[in-house]
Amino acid sequence: MNITLDQAEKIIIAAKEKSIALNTKMNISVVDAGANLVAFARMDGAWLGSLDISLKKAKTARFFDMNTGVIGELSQPGGALYNIEHSNGGLITFPGGVPIKNEKDEIIGAIGVSGSTVENDHAVAEAGAAAL
Amino acid sequence: MNITLDQAEKIIIAAKEKSIALNTKMNISVVDAGANLVAFARMDGAWLGSLDISLKKAKTARFFDMNTGVIGELSQPGGALYNIEHSNGGLITFPGGVPIKNEKDEIIGAIGVSGSTVENDHAVAEAGAAAL
Amino acid sequence: MNITLDQAEKIIIAAKEKSIALNTKMNISVVDAGANLVAFARMDGAWLGSLDISLKKAKTARFFDMNTGVIGELSQPGGALYNIEHSNGGLITFPGGVPIKNEKDEIIGAIGVSGSTVENDHAVAEAGAAAL
Amino acid sequence: MNITLDQAEKIIIAAKEKSIALNTKMNISVVDAGANLVAFARMDGAWLGSLDISLKKAKTARFFDMNTGVIGELSQPGGALYNIEHSNGGLITFPGGVPIKNEKDEIIGAIGVSGSTVENDHAVAEAGAAAL
Repeated sequence: MNITLDQAEKIIIAAKEKSIALNTKMNISVVDAGANLVAFARMDGAWLGSLDISLKKAKTARFFDMNTGVIGELSQPGGALYNIEHSNGGLITFPGGVPIKNEKDEIIGAIGVSGSTVENDHAVAEAGAAAL
Repeated sequence: MNITLDQAEKIIIAAKEKSIALNTKMNISVVDAGANLVAFARMDGAWLGSLDISLKKAKTARFFDMNTGVIGELSQPGGALYNIEHSNGGLITFPGGVPIKNEKDEIIGAIGVSGSTVENDHAVAEAGAAAL
Repeated sequence: MNITLDQAEKIIIAAKEKSIALNTKMNISVVDAGANLVAFARMDGAWLGSLDISLKKAKTARFFDMNTGVIGELSQPGGALYNIEHSNGGLITFPGGVPIKNEKDEIIGAIGVSGSTVENDHAVAEAGAAAL
Repeated sequence: MNITLDQAEKIIIAAKEKSIALNTKMNISVVDAGANLVAFARMDGAWLGSLDISLKKAKTARFFDMNTGVIGELSQPGGALYNIEHSNGGLITFPGGVPIKNEKDEIIGAIGVSGSTVENDHAVAEAGAAAL
């Protein structure tokens, strides 16, 4: 099962609404089951540097089928996955990347959000993922 | 002047409609005046390899403020710009990238389309750019 | 609003003067609002390795519209943005990168300086940014 | 012998003057004997994509101590250096890159210019190199 463009666009709409509700400006990436970009939106005035971060968060979440923040806990100095960020052309392992599941609980893609605090980034990613 | 997300999303909608009218499946990238991605959509079943090509076409069109196919005529063996594709992390110089102008004829971004013949790619890019 | 070459050259002159006053040899990069290089100078005898660092500092400051050292405080082990340096082709997050504002307080670019202690790098970047 | 920043800045001033005389907008890179950037200027409104091309032209001219256009004649299909552009992270082998010599005819660096036709690019590079 793979995410469709229609589903990805619904997710981006939901993420934009949550971002506006939080008074933030976000970069929002949605990747498919193959970790390839399906849809993207950069809100006016959002940080330029967050473009790549939102994409890397989405990819990271799908690469390992878990929230990016979970990986970040394991990649700290002394941790089991120390510096895993060096793989795959660069991972981002702080919060803001979340797997996307269909109604059968199958992972069909992931969303990555960047542009504010990691708490806000994660909240917007969750709102996006919950839109299906 | 720089393109807004609203404008970029209008352009993607128009490009998708043209793509459907041509019975094709496209990757569609819209970049801003700084050649950074603003919005993206990959239609269901579109070639995976066209994702990067659509982005590079959009960047190339903005990097030089002209249609990508014009550069491709100059970059042939023996041409004035032979192998210019090795610059900027990789250019794509066949048709499908078109600058986006506002009503004052200022370039505010560019669109890149990939997924079919270069004739179809260019037609969809033109339809997108004309949506403003 | 975007920085002009005239403005960028004034900034580099001011940064060179401050660098000489501090008895240092610097690499100085000025990028525009799109994080693309506008002007650069490497003082005679400055570290070669600081060339790329000065550019990455300038880009980093514009990518997130803040001093690079602020990001570096958040990217430490255990910090909210741990290993953010893996994004955008490589960030530099210690001091020496500073956003450049015009008289209306709009960010129009950024300066990145590298070649001495981070305190000196930051002082020279501040002197450059203050020249407008 | 190596180029100084003072010399590089004189070269950029001369190149800018020639560029204005030709009614063009150029990206101008000056590298030292080690092929590392010493000074750079992007004139207001110059093509964004020419930033990287000007730098690659300057590096290419110093890498092989000859005008870039000479290499481009040898890198054509069937030529002795076919596709040499794939080396060194990307070469640019059409005109616009010229070695810089001191009064003893020693090569101390190179200039690369991009932003117009290859004839104009080369003329501006020559004007810059002749400034010493």
